[in-house]
Amino acid sequence: MSGGMEIIRRPAEMTRWARQQAAAGRRICLVPTMGFFHEGHLRLMDMAGRHGDLVVVSLFVNPTQFGPGEDLDAYPRDVGRDRDLAAGRGVDLLFVPDADAMYPPGFQTRVEVEKISRHLCGRFRPGHFAGVTTVVCKLLNIVRPDAAVFGEKDFQQLAVIRQMVRDLNMDVEILAHPTVREEDGLAMSSRNAYLDARLRPQARCLYQALERVRELVREGELDCVVLRQEVERLVGSYPDAELEYAEFVHRDTLAETTRADRQTVLALAVRLGERVRLIDNGLVAEHPDRT
Amino acid sequence: MSGGMEIIRRPAEMTRWARQQAAAGRRICLVPTMGFFHEGHLRLMDMAGRHGDLVVVSLFVNPTQFGPGEDLDAYPRDVGRDRDLAAGRGVDLLFVPDADAMYPPGFQTRVEVEKISRHLCGRFRPGHFAGVTTVVCKLLNIVRPDAAVFGEKDFQQLAVIRQMVRDLNMDVEILAHPTVREEDGLAMSSRNAYLDARLRPQARCLYQALERVRELVREGELDCVVLRQEVERLVGSYPDAELEYAEFVHRDTLAETTRADRQTVLALAVRLGERVRLIDNGLVAEHPDRT
Repeated sequence: MSGGMEIIRRPAEMTRWARQQAAAGRRICLVPTMGFFHEGHLRLMDMAGRHGDLVVVSLFVNPTQFGPGEDLDAYPRDVGRDRDLAAGRGVDLLFVPDADAMYPPGFQTRVEVEKISRHLCGRFRPGHFAGVTTVVCKLLNIVRPDAAVFGEKDFQQLAVIRQMVRDLNMDVEILAHPTVREEDGLAMSSRNAYLDARLRPQARCLYQALERVRELVREGELDCVVLRQEVERLVGSYPDAELEYAEFVHRDTLAETTRADRQTVLALAVRLGERVRLIDNGLVAEHPDRT
Repeated sequence: MSGGMEIIRRPAEMTRWARQQAAAGRRICLVPTMGFFHEGHLRLMDMAGRHGDLVVVSLFVNPTQFGPGEDLDAYPRDVGRDRDLAAGRGVDLLFVPDADAMYPPGFQTRVEVEKISRHLCGRFRPGHFAGVTTVVCKLLNIVRPDAAVFGEKDFQQLAVIRQMVRDLNMDVEILAHPTVREEDGLAMSSRNAYLDARLRPQARCLYQALERVRELVREGELDCVVLRQEVERLVGSYPDAELEYAEFVHRDTLAETTRADRQTVLALAVRLGERVRLIDNGLVAEHPDRT
């Protein structure tokens, strides 16, 4: 199963491979990642396998989406382990470009989704989403997939990428995979590796806030000011947790919502201790299609 | 000959057509234009015919590359005539999208080549090249050509587009066609339609300046300060001409040059009367590969 996985490092070679597959009528599904795979990534690969004849996973810790003082150097990496995990999941090709190949001397182009990049995380991480959209645009051009899978955990990233693809007429289907969670509800993330024994139990505060808001909404509380106060209270009850933001927004436009409805997403970011920052999100009316 | 030309207006339909042609193994060459065809455009179409099995011409007066106070409304248009001219030249498909289809409500993505967009025309037309690169990125994604042809008359535009294609790993070959000129040397341009009987003879000052600089370079004058003074003198000798800029730059990087060599391009922009602005450019050492 794992014997067949190819590894390509050079963008031009990746594109040649993709062109050959397309000429042979094979459908490529891409999973763009920054590596250090957890079960969340592996589920995206499974989903890609259901949507393409060939699954390509890109592994690139993109420097341009990290701000000054962020965790680019500390970001967890283990390419050998990632390779084995991807191969074990039936991935056909791992694309692992070098930063120099992605950003050669003279590189100077930026792809930016202007409005919805400024909300939520965009307020606290200036330039982050321009880094994301630029590298995703490049990866989509290099790998030429028919579809690409992103996790809903990165809710704003998904909205921004969908907008870019629509605005730039990129001929690719964007698929979203539901957030994969640990037993206590913590959304899986490579950055969970930063959590020590003191912080790990407190990290469940994000999911708890989400569940608590859902409970209130079920009970009829739709005022986002009240709901937000409850999030603040709950996160504030953990000694090392600091709420960066908690916002109620429309799932597609990211416009702020004052009264919760079936399109309303609660998105929140929490700082834990000195160096950990976690995000989570979810529709506040659970199972909105069933109610 | 002209009976076979298709016209498509909707981007999604254009992409479907392009995908079908690619599946059939046919190579598409695109000529992006703003219409009002002159012999320069037609030569680009001829060149496209030599590089592709199918020639697609896009005709779109892109509003986002015009600044406030520029000539968007006045820009000459004659789609009926353009259609006949393109069909007569053996073009296979004319893509004529509406502005609403290119920029639907909520559109908010920008593609920007940051450094080389700021030189030359970029200093006088803020936002112009971001408008160009965004629309060209969209057109390349919609038409999915194997190659695209641009005129060397728009020297900076060509450099900016090449940089975008390289930086974003767009899988398309960019071909340049030499500037096509009127008998007196005036570079063909749709904007030449603005020239009245008083201004038209003065419009040759751009080419005259280029030729005069080449003459000086042949004689051994390589100091760009001296060369620039000669351009100023020559343009200044015409009563309605005002030099906007004349710069000596490297043909690829657009970096300013102080001593002319085989890579040096003179790029200049001249205002004629109240509302006409013309540009021209050329290598200052003629036939650089032969000397």
